[in-house]
Amino acid sequence: MATKKLAAGVTRTDRSLMDGRTIRYYDTQGQSRNAEDQRPIEEQPPIGEMRLDPLSNEWVVMAAHRQGRVFLPPKELNPLAPSRPGFLTEIPESDYEVVVFDNRSPSLRSPETSVSIPDHADFTTAPVPAAGKCEVVCYTSNYDASFKDLSHKQIRTVLEAWRDRTAELSELAYIEHIAPFENRGEEVGVTLNHPHGQIYAYSFIPPKTARMLDVAREHRAKTGRVLLDDIVARELKDEVRIVAQNSEWVAYVPYASRYPFEIHVAPRRSVTDFVALDEAASDSFAPIAKEVLQRLDGVFGVTMPYIASWHQAPVRQGRESLRLHWQIQSVRRAPGKLKYLAGSESAFGAFMMDLKPEQSAQQLRDVAL
Amino acid sequence: MATKKLAAGVTRTDRSLMDGRTIRYYDTQGQSRNAEDQRPIEEQPPIGEMRLDPLSNEWVVMAAHRQGRVFLPPKELNPLAPSRPGFLTEIPESDYEVVVFDNRSPSLRSPETSVSIPDHADFTTAPVPAAGKCEVVCYTSNYDASFKDLSHKQIRTVLEAWRDRTAELSELAYIEHIAPFENRGEEVGVTLNHPHGQIYAYSFIPPKTARMLDVAREHRAKTGRVLLDDIVARELKDEVRIVAQNSEWVAYVPYASRYPFEIHVAPRRSVTDFVALDEAASDSFAPIAKEVLQRLDGVFGVTMPYIASWHQAPVRQGRESLRLHWQIQSVRRAPGKLKYLAGSESAFGAFMMDLKPEQSAQQLRDVAL
Repeated sequence: MATKKLAAGVTRTDRSLMDGRTIRYYDTQGQSRNAEDQRPIEEQPPIGEMRLDPLSNEWVVMAAHRQGRVFLPPKELNPLAPSRPGFLTEIPESDYEVVVFDNRSPSLRSPETSVSIPDHADFTTAPVPAAGKCEVVCYTSNYDASFKDLSHKQIRTVLEAWRDRTAELSELAYIEHIAPFENRGEEVGVTLNHPHGQIYAYSFIPPKTARMLDVAREHRAKTGRVLLDDIVARELKDEVRIVAQNSEWVAYVPYASRYPFEIHVAPRRSVTDFVALDEAASDSFAPIAKEVLQRLDGVFGVTMPYIASWHQAPVRQGRESLRLHWQIQSVRRAPGKLKYLAGSESAFGAFMMDLKPEQSAQQLRDVAL
Repeated sequence: MATKKLAAGVTRTDRSLMDGRTIRYYDTQGQSRNAEDQRPIEEQPPIGEMRLDPLSNEWVVMAAHRQGRVFLPPKELNPLAPSRPGFLTEIPESDYEVVVFDNRSPSLRSPETSVSIPDHADFTTAPVPAAGKCEVVCYTSNYDASFKDLSHKQIRTVLEAWRDRTAELSELAYIEHIAPFENRGEEVGVTLNHPHGQIYAYSFIPPKTARMLDVAREHRAKTGRVLLDDIVARELKDEVRIVAQNSEWVAYVPYASRYPFEIHVAPRRSVTDFVALDEAASDSFAPIAKEVLQRLDGVFGVTMPYIASWHQAPVRQGRESLRLHWQIQSVRRAPGKLKYLAGSESAFGAFMMDLKPEQSAQQLRDVAL
């Protein structure tokens, strides 16, 4: 059992699960993490494959073994709860603060031999192993909590886990991009209601990141500036779409938002990734994160579904051009209505918005906290 | 009232609705279409705007007046039914075969003055009017039918409407791309259950089409060949993903499909758009269309949600590289389960598939018709 000291008094302790996967306990009280996984040994499914969609030259991951995964179990069968006598879960300990473990049904996994994903794939490119990592991040052992209910200290511990995972995953030769995200709500397909996020570490630059990289590089070539810096400066200048701010972070509905409620949160001093985020910014994240998520749930007085995604610079490319920020996107457009990505959005990529960004920013600001 | 003769014995008769919108009746029996729209005159909402998302350099359409549109009315209040005494709908006639009319709440509309959408928009680009056209295509007056239930003759009439609209919309100076599509099922956000599709005519090349265009151009520069021709040739050679074929069309689950059930249907002799589709191909579309949609509904014995989209060459660009084909994508992965576009797909554009294309092709072929 190796224990490692991280920032903010957080320690990380690694253990192995029954099938060889690693679980990492992120703690603030110096807890010992000795519990063994008592479940029977289980074989891991084989690695999947990635095929290039020849119409778009984008990789599609085929992971055919995932069809049978657990789907919305009741609270008493929650696999992300701590283990208890008679009910063994993914977390062998009887309690935890924050844990990160390898997904039991990962779409992407460590390749057995080194893989090389062609940079300029095209119609002739053969399938490659679905190399990468899929990790689960449990924010708390409390099933009934949500990210916005976490204490400042808990959020800081989650942030240290994101930073630690980014640093460690960046060291893997086959990883090109690291993407922490959270799906919240059955409306966006959540299969486990326990408060948790995921980290996908891709062996390729995912299509939307690749697009952002192209645009940011072009902006840099043209102006010498970092695109996200100019975007945040415009949001601060325009002011009308600002939702919240503190000394280190700015939260805004983006100028051309695509979802009825969309909030981007960026540090005032832009950085490539979590590893580069300094102490002051790390400490000031919790209050603005809680505030924007509370505002989001306050708009209609209902728990909002969302996808919250962290965008960082890729591991090996574009580190001069892309910058860390958090995007929160909700498809709820009214209490009983969702926005669906139908023909125009889904088949053609052209987004149609029913609500002006300035209107939704106003609604978010108007929420009494 | 102008009547125009199209192919396959179809005539088109144009009428005006109460707010100046045009309705076009596509008929095969030489019907007179004299019924006047008896509804009170209504003002049309103003044109929306398009803003450039600076992170992706993609246009996002803001059409704030659409929030209040009709949402899943019961059959007796169906606005796509023919009008009857005491209930006036979008279609003034008491019956119809196929009609196409301008959407009452369009995201895109005709600009009052000529607009110029910059080809190379970037962070500094100002908003532009949301120019374009959104049309509704009613496939039949029978509320309980679905595309797959239409007769060969009805489908041919719909095809003539798609062709006619493509030809006419291509003449408009502000139109760059014409996209007929159908959303079917409340699972994909359908707001009216009447069997109908839509046509979006964009004043810009939509992002996914732009991406397909880049890839097809690169393929052509490298090989001298049309990408879709090579794709169809590979599908025919691999054979395992073919779902249906006839003398003029091939239907296949694409090599790197993104949805649990996805079928592409392409003519054997590739063409730029509907206008270029010859008589033999036009006549042979109905049987393969009905077959693939019947196979789709047969997989689980339930009505499947789908987005079916026609991809054509853009009006003014890439006509040497892009080719007409039909993509049908269903998010249903099991009788009680949908695939959701969550964090990886939605925020990063990286698709994770639970089912191999060869498996879903087998399931589709195994359906007894």
